[in-house]
Amino acid sequence: MDIKTYMQTVGQQARAASAAMARASTKAKNDTLSELARLLRAAGAPLAAANDQDIAAAEAAGLAAPMVDRLRLTGKIIDTMAAGCEQLAAMPDPIGEMTGIKRLPSGISVGQMRVPLGVFGMIFESRPNVAIEAASLAIKSGNACILRGGSEAFQSNLALWKLVRQALESAGLPATAVQLVETTDRAAVGELITMPTYVDVIIPRGGKGLIERIGKEAKVPVIKHLDGNCHTYIDAEFDLEKALLVTDNAKTQKYSPCNATESLLVHARAAATFLPRIGAIFAAKGVEMRCDSASRAILDAVAGARLAGARLADASEEDWYTEYLAPIISVKVVSDLDEAINHINHYSSHHTDAILTTNHPNAMRFLREVDSSSVMVNASTRFADGFEYGLGAEIGISTDKIHARGPVGLEGLTSQKWVVLGDGHVRG
Amino acid sequence: MDIKTYMQTVGQQARAASAAMARASTKAKNDTLSELARLLRAAGAPLAAANDQDIAAAEAAGLAAPMVDRLRLTGKIIDTMAAGCEQLAAMPDPIGEMTGIKRLPSGISVGQMRVPLGVFGMIFESRPNVAIEAASLAIKSGNACILRGGSEAFQSNLALWKLVRQALESAGLPATAVQLVETTDRAAVGELITMPTYVDVIIPRGGKGLIERIGKEAKVPVIKHLDGNCHTYIDAEFDLEKALLVTDNAKTQKYSPCNATESLLVHARAAATFLPRIGAIFAAKGVEMRCDSASRAILDAVAGARLAGARLADASEEDWYTEYLAPIISVKVVSDLDEAINHINHYSSHHTDAILTTNHPNAMRFLREVDSSSVMVNASTRFADGFEYGLGAEIGISTDKIHARGPVGLEGLTSQKWVVLGDGHVRG
Repeated sequence: MDIKTYMQTVGQQARAASAAMARASTKAKNDTLSELARLLRAAGAPLAAANDQDIAAAEAAGLAAPMVDRLRLTGKIIDTMAAGCEQLAAMPDPIGEMTGIKRLPSGISVGQMRVPLGVFGMIFESRPNVAIEAASLAIKSGNACILRGGSEAFQSNLALWKLVRQALESAGLPATAVQLVETTDRAAVGELITMPTYVDVIIPRGGKGLIERIGKEAKVPVIKHLDGNCHTYIDAEFDLEKALLVTDNAKTQKYSPCNATESLLVHARAAATFLPRIGAIFAAKGVEMRCDSASRAILDAVAGARLAGARLADASEEDWYTEYLAPIISVKVVSDLDEAINHINHYSSHHTDAILTTNHPNAMRFLREVDSSSVMVNASTRFADGFEYGLGAEIGISTDKIHARGPVGLEGLTSQKWVVLGDGHVRG
Repeated sequence: MDIKTYMQTVGQQARAASAAMARASTKAKNDTLSELARLLRAAGAPLAAANDQDIAAAEAAGLAAPMVDRLRLTGKIIDTMAAGCEQLAAMPDPIGEMTGIKRLPSGISVGQMRVPLGVFGMIFESRPNVAIEAASLAIKSGNACILRGGSEAFQSNLALWKLVRQALESAGLPATAVQLVETTDRAAVGELITMPTYVDVIIPRGGKGLIERIGKEAKVPVIKHLDGNCHTYIDAEFDLEKALLVTDNAKTQKYSPCNATESLLVHARAAATFLPRIGAIFAAKGVEMRCDSASRAILDAVAGARLAGARLADASEEDWYTEYLAPIISVKVVSDLDEAINHINHYSSHHTDAILTTNHPNAMRFLREVDSSSVMVNASTRFADGFEYGLGAEIGISTDKIHARGPVGLEGLTSQKWVVLGDGHVRG
């Protein structure tokens, strides 16, 4: 069978399964998730063997150690996957929720009902646990999904998928509600993103290059997560100790996540107090500071005495745009809140940006005027995450404005249709 | 200046104006709308002269009379435009609304804030009043917009746009918040729909061909309204008199709107009672009935006696897909609710579909399982409309599931960003 025919078949099956999933009872969906958790915990040798195959192949292919690590389904990761399924089972069912029903002058009652999107395609790289995250979110939200994993995790994904099908069937739901693309041929992706008849939305998770290419070539909507060039801005009036704690956490708690702060803006009136203190913390942790001239002057003045070993450099224009995902931060002194907001709206990737301030009007202006998917006051940008936001789980973080924005949980996989209740009402 | 350069300039100005609109006060936006209403009512001779120019040109070009009529800015239409602006001014400001703020275990408070999308491009044909509808919705929702009207209404649109700019300036808002494409060159549309840097979403209003083409060629999201092949389904248990009233209204109150019923499904147990009665109504109004064999047999049996002059025909497969926008209706007998739901989900354009029933479980199943932007119980499909739904005004009706679905009012022109409020909170 050629790839096109194969993907059309997968698409047809997904579309057919999506109708059964949309009307599935909450109990059947929750039973599926509980059973999947049980199967994951009991998977044992077959899952381990599949995972070992991927790891051996990756090592044989000379993959870098951190890449190989991302493939590994440790006991802890398996338990996290199972716990995630159980958490989803415990959450309220978003489907069928009716909101805002109002009686209107014509006599009809009008409101909205939450319904599944239908079929989503999930394209992901390496980590096989994403297969379970996507499958479990699809099940709870009443969608069908088509999973396309990375070739390096192919055997692990197949083994996990088998458990998902088993769990669906045990609850009387169609096994085709979750399908894995059973080929590593790249042409399958091209088909998946150009089948509007069968796929309602594509969710890619992976490198920026992959996501940009999918966004360009897709013929269906894409929930995109591009880069996270996040800012922390220290306002003129601020609490020094809290600002140090938050800025340190935002930059150094972990360097690789998309919600780590990559750029520090400091109000001119705060700079002399704040920069030497945060500079000392960054110096101690080996974080390189790429500075504008004003911040460089302040840091240079104390470099010998208080910033032993500090790595200071001059920032280039390119630095303000850069998501380092590394122990590097760009630093700039701004003359006022307007300059901070303008700088962020210009250079930010519109992912997450924070103000640290004790001034209420400034906090409110920042919240309103910074055009990012998450805006924060006196909190670490590292909080931008579906779990921390109480969504239970996230399928990705959207840096787009249309449909879902920011961390995307169950709700982002649904739409709302209008419901009209009458009693023989006609339009006059 | 070439079209590309011109459109880039328009786009840059819109993007710049969108920041000012996003932070505009509610008062400035409402003052603009009130002033625009006043200017419209006082427009008098210059607006009439511009409109006369378009009408004369249309008549000279041999446009059909109904098309020429759609261009005409009568006193009534001008008053409706002005009243629409005043209604929008009286509505609550959607921008800045914060919802669902919850305290989470980490100590941060998380919720969402409603913000404008940024810049939308509106592409419309004939009726110049759409220019005012789009401009007024843009102003209230804090967006900038770029209007591209039909060439046949070019002078009228220019004259209306002048009033919009005047109203914006009177309230201290940038006149560039609403721009009209000042050329009838078709290449301008091609540019408008492929400038993701400057345009966040495109809203086309016009024929299906235009909208399909824009959907295919656009490089930005499109809020699409394709056809309205709406169904009314008469269930086994139903109130005969109400069902006759509603079905008659759904089909014949007006033939041209997208929310008129185009297809009638009747449960086999209801057919013998209902079909002759509704057939008589349709016969009297000259509505042609394109029937499946079962409904045809029932109607033929009474054709001579009770359906004098009835226009009966056999439905082809194509009929079940067709949006007639004319005094024609397709008619089918179904054996049960499942067949009705399956038929609708297969043939409907997912615009608006209604069940007429006295059976509660069936009503709930129809609401939940019919995958359309509006689903109705015991009400005329003709109600599917932003004004009837209490949205105040609508910029279009979306038959997509992503982002806005169904009638799109102010909310559809906004997005929600996440707001995080802390007091020095860090992630553990």
